[in-house]
Amino acid sequence: MPHLVILYSGNLDRPIAQGGTNMSALCRGLADAMLSVRDEQERQVFPIGGTRVLAYPAAHWAISDGGAAGEAVGKGGDYAFVYLNLRMGRGRSAAVHERAGRALEAMVLQHFEDQIKSRPIGLTLQIDEGPEVFDAKNSSLHPLFSKN
Amino acid sequence: MPHLVILYSGNLDRPIAQGGTNMSALCRGLADAMLSVRDEQERQVFPIGGTRVLAYPAAHWAISDGGAAGEAVGKGGDYAFVYLNLRMGRGRSAAVHERAGRALEAMVLQHFEDQIKSRPIGLTLQIDEGPEVFDAKNSSLHPLFSKN
Amino acid sequence: MPHLVILYSGNLDRPIAQGGTNMSALCRGLADAMLSVRDEQERQVFPIGGTRVLAYPAAHWAISDGGAAGEAVGKGGDYAFVYLNLRMGRGRSAAVHERAGRALEAMVLQHFEDQIKSRPIGLTLQIDEGPEVFDAKNSSLHPLFSKN
Repeated sequence: MPHLVILYSGNLDRPIAQGGTNMSALCRGLADAMLSVRDEQERQVFPIGGTRVLAYPAAHWAISDGGAAGEAVGKGGDYAFVYLNLRMGRGRSAAVHERAGRALEAMVLQHFEDQIKSRPIGLTLQIDEGPEVFDAKNSSLHPLFSKN
Repeated sequence: MPHLVILYSGNLDRPIAQGGTNMSALCRGLADAMLSVRDEQERQVFPIGGTRVLAYPAAHWAISDGGAAGEAVGKGGDYAFVYLNLRMGRGRSAAVHERAGRALEAMVLQHFEDQIKSRPIGLTLQIDEGPEVFDAKNSSLHPLFSKN
Repeated sequence: MPHLVILYSGNLDRPIAQGGTNMSALCRGLADAMLSVRDEQERQVFPIGGTRVLAYPAAHWAISDGGAAGEAVGKGGDYAFVYLNLRMGRGRSAAVHERAGRALEAMVLQHFEDQIKSRPIGLTLQIDEGPEVFDAKNSSLHPLFSKN
């Protein structure tokens, strides 16, 4: 933990000239945004060795009315959708949730600034606290960053 | 919100003659089913601009015993599995959950009517109320449907 | 239910000589591990017809610092990450959660024994109890295993 999973309509994986976006760059930007979050005592919230972003284009999708309303207003019917879900550990304050959410939202809005103007696109970001009843972590990544 | 995510065994993306299905058509059918749901006051439950269905074939999978029981009864060992998860906003009544669930289930059963007769397949549909601790939505899609 | 979903960095789908792994074998191993779990009365916990594992390589991802720390210590910067999430029905004891978790964790550690020594990789396993507000199952798979 934490990890951020992005589910999105597959049309965003097209070449940029055809309405796509650089999703790898967004993943990196979001990981960096996560690493920048500080709590009320200015401590880093997310450990560097445990920060992960995974992005998944849907193979099939259906959005809203399928395109008619966008066509009717000259915005086109090739709707896009991005759902970002951050799952983080339990017990953080509401202020930390808000800081994390705003940092991620700012990166998402910057990344999609042009798209949100030019096409119908929905961007939803949600943070969940993990409700797990069992949790096991094994890592050869964390130790790279552990302090001696 | 709401969004419906479909996770399924990748064998369902094969050509229909080889046991596949038209998953894009199912996505559209499920989006339409969501848009048809009404609450106890006959109001539309899911906003058109916020209705999304995303479908993901697994790249790798393992189901049940791997095929032996199906082979043994002449049904074949190429099992399939479809998991549909609708995440919707908090605060709806149990009756609305039931109506939404039954509308989606009816579409799923219609779509897989032939497959459920001809092969071993599992179809599981669940609705969750989002437990999010942070929620941010930005959309150029919703405004296409907002009333003035 | 139950189902286990594996989300992982796409570099693990490369040929094994290039850092990949046999994810199909892991899926089968985890399904078998699930089927081996017994409760306090030695009853099988997960029904054979309802046991599913689905694995998804991310198309895009970002992990930790992106590789610098691994490069610096000669472990390489091609980090990997595997997130395993089992969703099971409500109402099982904490002891059953622990047994299921340990059975799955043992399989994961065996599968990635070499990788965890040779590269920076994070392996996270979590079990959730399904919080669903609606649940519908239809299956032509379960009946293959039902007792008369």
